[in-house]
Amino acid sequence: MTTAYNRIAGQSVERLAALSDGIFAFAMTLLVLDLRVPAMEAVHNEHDLWHGLAALSPRLVMYMMTFMTLGIFWLGQQTQLNHLERSNIRLSWIHIAFLFFVTITPFSTALLAEFTGYRIALVAYWFNLLGLGLALYVSWGCATRSGLVKDDIAPEVPAAVCRRIVIAQSLYAFGALLCVASTHWSIAFIVLVQLYYALAPRIAK
Amino acid sequence: MTTAYNRIAGQSVERLAALSDGIFAFAMTLLVLDLRVPAMEAVHNEHDLWHGLAALSPRLVMYMMTFMTLGIFWLGQQTQLNHLERSNIRLSWIHIAFLFFVTITPFSTALLAEFTGYRIALVAYWFNLLGLGLALYVSWGCATRSGLVKDDIAPEVPAAVCRRIVIAQSLYAFGALLCVASTHWSIAFIVLVQLYYALAPRIAK
Amino acid sequence: MTTAYNRIAGQSVERLAALSDGIFAFAMTLLVLDLRVPAMEAVHNEHDLWHGLAALSPRLVMYMMTFMTLGIFWLGQQTQLNHLERSNIRLSWIHIAFLFFVTITPFSTALLAEFTGYRIALVAYWFNLLGLGLALYVSWGCATRSGLVKDDIAPEVPAAVCRRIVIAQSLYAFGALLCVASTHWSIAFIVLVQLYYALAPRIAK
Amino acid sequence: MTTAYNRIAGQSVERLAALSDGIFAFAMTLLVLDLRVPAMEAVHNEHDLWHGLAALSPRLVMYMMTFMTLGIFWLGQQTQLNHLERSNIRLSWIHIAFLFFVTITPFSTALLAEFTGYRIALVAYWFNLLGLGLALYVSWGCATRSGLVKDDIAPEVPAAVCRRIVIAQSLYAFGALLCVASTHWSIAFIVLVQLYYALAPRIAK
Repeated sequence: MTTAYNRIAGQSVERLAALSDGIFAFAMTLLVLDLRVPAMEAVHNEHDLWHGLAALSPRLVMYMMTFMTLGIFWLGQQTQLNHLERSNIRLSWIHIAFLFFVTITPFSTALLAEFTGYRIALVAYWFNLLGLGLALYVSWGCATRSGLVKDDIAPEVPAAVCRRIVIAQSLYAFGALLCVASTHWSIAFIVLVQLYYALAPRIAK
Repeated sequence: MTTAYNRIAGQSVERLAALSDGIFAFAMTLLVLDLRVPAMEAVHNEHDLWHGLAALSPRLVMYMMTFMTLGIFWLGQQTQLNHLERSNIRLSWIHIAFLFFVTITPFSTALLAEFTGYRIALVAYWFNLLGLGLALYVSWGCATRSGLVKDDIAPEVPAAVCRRIVIAQSLYAFGALLCVASTHWSIAFIVLVQLYYALAPRIAK
Repeated sequence: MTTAYNRIAGQSVERLAALSDGIFAFAMTLLVLDLRVPAMEAVHNEHDLWHGLAALSPRLVMYMMTFMTLGIFWLGQQTQLNHLERSNIRLSWIHIAFLFFVTITPFSTALLAEFTGYRIALVAYWFNLLGLGLALYVSWGCATRSGLVKDDIAPEVPAAVCRRIVIAQSLYAFGALLCVASTHWSIAFIVLVQLYYALAPRIAK
Repeated sequence: MTTAYNRIAGQSVERLAALSDGIFAFAMTLLVLDLRVPAMEAVHNEHDLWHGLAALSPRLVMYMMTFMTLGIFWLGQQTQLNHLERSNIRLSWIHIAFLFFVTITPFSTALLAEFTGYRIALVAYWFNLLGLGLALYVSWGCATRSGLVKDDIAPEVPAAVCRRIVIAQSLYAFGALLCVASTHWSIAFIVLVQLYYALAPRIAK
């Protein structure tokens, strides 16, 4: 019934990229709404203001983490879409699911930041990372199987894309497993992984 | 008086697409603002946190529904715009009306989720779906009549676009009618239709 | 000192258009945040819900007005940018000023809707419309004087763009002047002008 | 391990520009959420409304300052990206860091506006400006060293881009230093610098 429609629907990689950029832009700025200037009444000197700002620092760190995590996945998605000739309706839906996980990342990061000692918060956060990774992995499979990939891509690209997702997700899963010992070990490990992915390209040649 | 202006105004499909992507991105992330992390004071152990998150699940489901519905209509609009050579001022206004219905979708979904047993909430939600569908239908009519469609589109495209809208809107109308029996039947039916449109392309070849 | 920089800065019409689309998308959805679902506790039957929704209708009308007004000016800006070959730093700043007036439109509309009987609210709203119009007028002047306009535009375009702005602003100014008699006359007149600009292209051939 | 991936990741200048436009659009409209219409109950005549609006004017001025500051840096980033042939993963991360500073600009501006007499607020604001400038400076260095710049750029472009950043940052640093005497001198000086950058291109040929 809807076959003819499904064959012609959702073919624009540009539109998919533009919607993604809009949703990433919104999700990346969402937590800044929680950074509120200290109340004037509580501040009588420089010392008070310093304390007021110090009290905000956990939220600022959490915000930086979300920003960095979403930066990693924005780059991951961009790299895939850059290599696509066109999209189709199935790939579009996979990326809509990916974008759903993008939008809840600020929530699950805030949850983990508030409840650092709780395994449920950690598992929820890990589910979020897993959802992001799975969507990208399935997306690449769909793109290669349906012939959506550009003809002239370098031969090492497909393997590099898959390897990156598998390695990152293995590290996240290992990090999540560490919560058997302590959730703080898990958080520390996952933060280190994210920092590595964000900083390594800046340092290494 | 304004004829000359109207002939030259609003001709860019790219700008229309970009505005739409921005508005869709915003509307799709709007309801995430209602997902608030459980209050720290109410949580003393894993069990409490689990209950706090479980209490959020209706909002999460509602959010997923909005995301999915807007995904369906984003794809519907994209499919049309992909086949247009250029736009004109009349088509632009039809899509501005379409985008208006997009922005109130989070509101009407929240209304229905809060008042599942109320016919007015269901009718308001259905009006929203109807507005989205009507705008797309009128838009396609305007595009074909005004010669805005690309020359090289496949011959089955126009019929497929119209058929899709008519079938979907018939199903939504039938779902809305079910509220004569019970609004819960209506909701279940409409949710199934949305799930079908979102999942069918992922499963079927 | 900054001459060399100013000669090379801000030359991309595409970036200007993309920033504008983002800001318009945000400004057009801002007032939807004020549409809150009626509180569950106050609703015991369909009648209560109907009244709850009816109480929201002034906000919905105000939201539609903002959406329509911003739609008019989005089309006005788009029409100008569509005819530009490139931008320069002066034109970019004129459009940043234009976008400033775009972002405060939801505020000034809400002000007018809350205080319909107050001349200050009306004058503030009119200043907003005037700022939008002035920015577009100055922008077109800058574009033609600096040779940023495409070579192949139809000869009637420059006159049509200017005429449109002058006529619209004259009508708004006349509407604002009516507040000497009554602010309600002013509002009615300005609303009619906006409706004319939004609906005329849909009806007329 | 991740070398192959890093070589192919984040190469699209267009995606970087689109994400930036979305984040700038959001950050530039964020403070408008703080402009609330005066409460109806407190207003009984034109005089009350005038006072209510006058009470909003510091927020409006602060909002204009943020808008202008972000406009300056949007133009600065745009000018760089316009001259790039492609991006790479290192440049992408530099710009993600840049965008982080963009999103906290509304916060640090609000902080300074609330605590004009406090050196910590001024230093925080200056750190924000410094972060924006540093990111752009490092970005240009990375782009030239990695051969990402277009081949056909005018010979004076690289020097003009660097000179602009160095001069602007020197002025900001001098302004920040003035807080040894008085933070109000600092604020006045920095506001004048911003006004100069925003208005000079409009006045000068």
